[in-house]
Amino acid sequence: MTRKTPSSERRSHALSREAIVEGAIELLDTEGERGLTFRALAARLCTGAGAIYWYISDKDELMAAAADHVLGLALATVREESDPRAAIRADALALFDAFEAHPWAGTSLSLDPQQSAMVRFLERIGSRLITIGVPPQARFDAWSACVNYILGVAGQNAAQARSHPHEASRNATLQAVADSWKRLDPTTHPFLHETATHLPGHDDRAQYLAGIELILAGVDRTLVPVR
Amino acid sequence: MTRKTPSSERRSHALSREAIVEGAIELLDTEGERGLTFRALAARLCTGAGAIYWYISDKDELMAAAADHVLGLALATVREESDPRAAIRADALALFDAFEAHPWAGTSLSLDPQQSAMVRFLERIGSRLITIGVPPQARFDAWSACVNYILGVAGQNAAQARSHPHEASRNATLQAVADSWKRLDPTTHPFLHETATHLPGHDDRAQYLAGIELILAGVDRTLVPVR
Repeated sequence: MTRKTPSSERRSHALSREAIVEGAIELLDTEGERGLTFRALAARLCTGAGAIYWYISDKDELMAAAADHVLGLALATVREESDPRAAIRADALALFDAFEAHPWAGTSLSLDPQQSAMVRFLERIGSRLITIGVPPQARFDAWSACVNYILGVAGQNAAQARSHPHEASRNATLQAVADSWKRLDPTTHPFLHETATHLPGHDDRAQYLAGIELILAGVDRTLVPVR
Repeated sequence: MTRKTPSSERRSHALSREAIVEGAIELLDTEGERGLTFRALAARLCTGAGAIYWYISDKDELMAAAADHVLGLALATVREESDPRAAIRADALALFDAFEAHPWAGTSLSLDPQQSAMVRFLERIGSRLITIGVPPQARFDAWSACVNYILGVAGQNAAQARSHPHEASRNATLQAVADSWKRLDPTTHPFLHETATHLPGHDDRAQYLAGIELILAGVDRTLVPVR
């Protein structure tokens, strides 16, 4: 009667916090946030929900751990750059791509010090700003602008991309918006009237990076006294 | 038998797209996104769900219309500024405050040309950049950086503020994060070790505005050839 069944054998070998987090990522990618339940995850891991609770206390903690794992994998893909500005661009693009591949991740990250990839990311951006030469009194602002932009804009982009999973659908929507802007009165809407031509087919990733460039250009102005 | 009951009387007078949208905003503010159903909204408006479908086709359209209404009210509170940079700051803060008051709104906005406040917001930011003197070839980048930052960061901030409805809970979390950063090795984590002192009690709204300042400083560099 004490002989292990194949499923409990598998559990004792395979169940770990990491296996749970990886299973959660697979479920989130395929079923979305609503599809992630402890019951569905337990079935996937051939274990019971109770065993998972031993490692993770609730769905919020599970989502945060899964998002942190995605962030860690993204950071690990970034080739080390000697130029700190190029390094910030590379980090920013790695997160953009990771959130696009895992659109639930961008809005599930947590500052919680338990989330080690988040700590690594926050330090990386900050230490690159030190290398650029941003003076101490300007660092907190420069860092929070970079970090807020990267997490906020990349996260929002990924969430919106979900509503247009196909390139053709996105292009058709942008074309319809551009057409409506072209019909606006150029005296009351000079900017949108002129911008209508840029809208269809623009590259969200390139526009995201253009924002990073503007923040970095603004940061450069903190390096020398300008007035 | 043809005499109207009080409730059908109320329906015929009160039901309009605007009344539906205002009812949806009240439900979203009190019950959250999950609490917004056509059934609950119909009960609140003393009508049937079918009557609502005559004006709004689905929940996505309703959320987008509600978010656009919130945006319109926020823009209407902004005092007109003659300085275009001050005007961009004022718009940005108005949206930050509106999303904090209606945290579901920041992530529900849509580019859909039917959403008139969104069109007004996008034009406002763009036309202020024209007034600043941003040259045509730099305008699309400057505009998308401002708009993406405002919508992305203000939206993300509001979504995260929901998890800490009380100031004391937010402060306790930030203090715990700062304490963990202070324990990091300053040789491997120079930035977070130093930044731990700034974290507790920092003002998210001020940090958000600091990012706008950096983008505007970056935009200023497009005004004159720098190399």
